[in-house]
Formats: sequence, C-alpha cells, structure tokens
Amino acid sequence: MNTVNLKQLAKELNVSVSTVSRALRDSWEISTPTKQRVFELAKKMNFQPNPYASSLRKHRSRTIAVVIPEVANNFFALAIKGIETIAREKGYHVLIYLTNEDAGEEMSVATSLQSGRVDGVILSLSGHTTDIRHLVELQQRNIPLVFFDRVCDSIGAPRVVTNDYESGFVATEHLIRAGCRRIAHLAISMELSISHKRMKGYTDGLRRYDQPFDDGMVVHCEDSDEENYKKIRALLSSPDRPDGIFASVEKLAVQVYHVCRELGLDIPRDVKVIGFSNLVTASLLNPALTTISQPAYDMGKEAATILFRRLEKKYILPPEDSVILPAKLEVRSSTI
Amino acid sequence: MNTVNLKQLAKELNVSVSTVSRALRDSWEISTPTKQRVFELAKKMNFQPNPYASSLRKHRSRTIAVVIPEVANNFFALAIKGIETIAREKGYHVLIYLTNEDAGEEMSVATSLQSGRVDGVILSLSGHTTDIRHLVELQQRNIPLVFFDRVCDSIGAPRVVTNDYESGFVATEHLIRAGCRRIAHLAISMELSISHKRMKGYTDGLRRYDQPFDDGMVVHCEDSDEENYKKIRALLSSPDRPDGIFASVEKLAVQVYHVCRELGLDIPRDVKVIGFSNLVTASLLNPALTTISQPAYDMGKEAATILFRRLEKKYILPPEDSVILPAKLEVRSSTI
Repeated sequence: MNTVNLKQLAKELNVSVSTVSRALRDSWEISTPTKQRVFELAKKMNFQPNPYASSLRKHRSRTIAVVIPEVANNFFALAIKGIETIAREKGYHVLIYLTNEDAGEEMSVATSLQSGRVDGVILSLSGHTTDIRHLVELQQRNIPLVFFDRVCDSIGAPRVVTNDYESGFVATEHLIRAGCRRIAHLAISMELSISHKRMKGYTDGLRRYDQPFDDGMVVHCEDSDEENYKKIRALLSSPDRPDGIFASVEKLAVQVYHVCRELGLDIPRDVKVIGFSNLVTASLLNPALTTISQPAYDMGKEAATILFRRLEKKYILPPEDSVILPAKLEVRSSTI
Repeated sequence: MNTVNLKQLAKELNVSVSTVSRALRDSWEISTPTKQRVFELAKKMNFQPNPYASSLRKHRSRTIAVVIPEVANNFFALAIKGIETIAREKGYHVLIYLTNEDAGEEMSVATSLQSGRVDGVILSLSGHTTDIRHLVELQQRNIPLVFFDRVCDSIGAPRVVTNDYESGFVATEHLIRAGCRRIAHLAISMELSISHKRMKGYTDGLRRYDQPFDDGMVVHCEDSDEENYKKIRALLSSPDRPDGIFASVEKLAVQVYHVCRELGLDIPRDVKVIGFSNLVTASLLNPALTTISQPAYDMGKEAATILFRRLEKKYILPPEDSVILPAKLEVRSSTI
C-alpha cells in the first residue's frame, strides 16, 4: 500500500520532518499558519499516522484538571460526567477547579497546574479572561490543553464547541415565528467568543426577518446574580418591554421566570422565553421552558477523548482539533 | 483571671497533658471515649484555649480537597460555594473530587490524597462506603478531615450536618396534616446515617399521628437514575399507590414529577410531594415543589471554617466539632 509519510509531507511543504510531526501534534512551538498548511496537506494527501509511532508519555500524576467557571449549572455538571466517563476508562483522576468567572482565579489555578500536578487540562474560560499568558505558559510546559464551550480563539489548542451562531439564529427565528416583534437578548460577557456568536445569530436572525435591531434590547448580564436580576427587572418593567426573550445561559432564563412572577407577567402570553439550557427541570417548569440544549455530556466526552489522544502523543488531524457538536431546539410552552 | 489550663484538665482526668492537647485537636491517636471525657470536662470547666499556643503548620500545597458523591445536585453546588468563600479568604485552592457514589472511587481518591497533595479534606460519603480504612489512613497521616452532610459515625472527625431526623419528622407531619393517609418514603442508600435519620423521622412521624407503617411504602432508590425511575413508576402505578411522597433527595423528587406526568397523575390532587431539595427552580415548577431546604451554603462555610481551625492547629471544642444547622420547611403548591 502506498501511504504518505511524514517525510513526504515535509518535502512537499519544504519544512523539516520534525516541524511536520510537531504541527500534527498541535505543538505550541509551531505557528498557527504553519500548522494550517500541514493540516491541509495532510488531509489532501490522506496522511494516516502510524499508530506504532505514537509513544506513551510518562505520566506521573495520572490526573487531569477540569477548569470551569461555575458548577451550579447543568451544562457544566453534565460535561464533567462526560469527561469522567472517559477518564475512568483510562484510569485517570479528574480534579475540578472553579474560577467563579474570575480571570485572576483562572490565572492562579493555571499557574499552580504548571508544576506537573496534572498531566493535562480541559478548560472553559472565565467570563473575564483577557490576558491569556497563563494558558500559553501551560502549553509551553507541554501540558496539553483542550478547550470546551468557552474557547480561546487566539490559542492554537483543540476545542469542542456547539454551533453557537446557528443556535442563536434558530432561537431568534423561533421567537419571530411565534409572533414576537420585540425580542430582547440577555448576553453574558462579551469577552467570550460564544457570546459573540450567539449574539451574531440573534442580530442576523432579526435582519433575516426584517426586524429592527434595538440596542436597548440587548442586556449584558455579566455581574453578580443580584445585579443581573435588577437589569432583567428593569427591562421587563419598562413601558416598551420586550415580548420575547432569548437568554444566552440557563441561569438568566431562570431569572426571567422569577422576574415575571414578581411583575405578574404571564409567560408566554405577555413575554415568550427561550434559553440555552440543560436544566433537568425545563419540562417541569410552569410553563415548561423552550430550550436550546447543548450536548453537554457528549461535549465533555469529546474534550476528554481529544485530551487523551494528546497525552498519548497521537497525532491530531483536522477536524479532530476542532469539534462542533450541534445543539437542539426543544420547543415547550414558554414560546407557544 | 483564674482560667483553666491543659494541666488542670489532665490532672482532673488522670491522663497526660499531651493526651488532653491531642484530644482537643481531635487527633486520631486518641480514642473516642477519651475525647468525649476531655470534651465534656473542658466544657464543664469552661476551658478557653490560649490563642498564642496555636502554631501554624507548614502547609505546602495551600490546597484543600472537597470529596463529594456528585455535582449535578444543587445541595453540593451550593456547599462548594460556601467552602470556596472561606478558602479564598485563606488564600487556598479548592480541588473537587467526585466519587459518583462509588466506594471504590472514594477509596482511590483518599489514597491519592495521602501523598500530601492537599493540606486537608472535606468529605461527604459515597452511598456505598462501608469499609472506611481509607479515611482512617488519611487521619493517621495527619491530614485533617471534616465531614459534611453524609458523615461517618464511626470516625472521630468533626462534622457539619443538618437536623435530618427532625426534618424527616416535619416532612411526614406536613403530609399527614395535608390529608395524606398513605405516605411513601423514597430513601437513598441505607449505608448512610442521614438516610437512617430521615427514615426514622418518617416512621416516628407516622407513629405519632397513628398512621400505620407499611414496608411497601419505603422505596430504596440506590441505583442508577433509570432503575430509580422504574421503581418510582412501579410505586405510582400500583392500585394502592401512595397519596403522599416524601423524597429524601432532590433528584428523586424531580423524578416523581416526571413519573406523574407520564402516568397522568395530578400533583397535589392525586399525590402530594415533598422533598429534601435546594433546587433553584423549586418555586417555578408546575406545581411549585414543597421542600425541606438545607442551609447548603452555610454548611459548606462551616465545614471549611472547622477545617481551617484544624489546619491552624487551633483547638476544637464541643460543639464546634459537630455542628447542626437546621433545615427549613418551605411549603408550596405540591402539598396544598
């Protein structure tokens, strides 16, 4: 069988074999453009890594870290279950670190992980991370990093996400078709790329259906629960309140319910509500909540699978380095 | 001021000063009966530890471990928040380990913690822990251990619990007063002392109101979610189904709602439901769920506070070694 090997790829690209090898391992030492060239050619030439060429690293800790912004959220709880399922198969421990949406805590955690306390890291960014040196340093110390959900676009690391843009579009479209003519969007931190994508889906959805975009209908809920609650209350108390709400995360959808109770607003008659959510009680709420449900468990499993491929020094080929698992619209009484 | 010191306590009890000191630090080296004698006398003689006698241990990791059975549970999510609040004040990291209700995983985690990876451990037992050697070994290595919620009665370690017996009684009484004459109890693993206490509250509640106890009305839900669901479905499908249900944990109450939907049973008309729960959506459910709410956040804070007292080698005096924070009955539409 005539198979393509590293040498041929290197020759074709006019780089060294070691550069190709490191690019395929997604090493931080190789620039993103070079990696892209290698990935593209490897795909085009149908390169198949030799499984015997992979050597198992010496892992001392047999532990991986999962760094997440919060735990009181069914998305993260389910993702952890998925990660643990894979880790258990591999005989690994999983440590969970909470950053509480605090960039400083994320930095402090990442720094403490540089010491070799864990073999690899699965991370979902805090809502306030702008400086990413702590993540770059992790990579420089050869501690493999995989992002899930809240990914960092400026670091060349594998990522597992959902189709945030399309989901934002679908949520908005669903509200418009349900008759809403004044749709508000409750966004989380705009430092996060998922926020941008969900918001872009919302604005494009409005445009597609010739709905005007109103700045006042976008509420940035990036503060404490109390502050967010006040903002949502102000939105729903105003004379030109929305008749539809698209919440970008679960806890904001739950807050909308509480505010509507308080203000005596009827869902869905006065205001229709849809939210990204993995709430186990979504169908039991009064009224049942229409959700965009991310495949949280599968996202966790996929992130862990990719991390272990990296730990085992297996080559990562596109599209394995960037997995998109689609979310699902689940229509319930809050929008019909 | 005439204060009692260690020497006086030792003389009175006819033991060495070091025994008294170690007993007051709740050391594993001192037997439980001796500790009890020391604690009682210290309380009786109003012993006040000298704060300057406390020496700060050299802590290398500045990390504590929180070992819990699961994370998809609002009780544990809130308790973690409480623990983190205190840990942050102390400049400590918190690592979360999930045992998934598996005794083997709990053992494996505890063993890996013996190496000095953390300075102290806060633990809530898995539902299947019977052999407790791994916990004894932690103590023998001088890694302070504090239990919360699901405590181990046979180990002399501080504990933070809620008033499980009284709460079980109150829940049962509430259903009886609401007119229920056939009350089922959904229990979790009977290996856990909280299960015994909640169940004892239930049986005593029945007796107090001259309600007959029926073995068939106690359902042991210690298996997978799927198995538990089947058991609850069988209970509610039977011709002599209960007219009231007391669920010992949140997820079982949620399952009762799902089963009732499926069977077309109306809550509260056909069956009234009360459950131990910290569900953020309890008041938003259809109908709103009556709960016994544990002060989860405060329990976490208290457990961490006690752990840091131990890390700082401060003496622990009764009742600090066993804190009971009362739960609260929150009456909602599912029982009225």
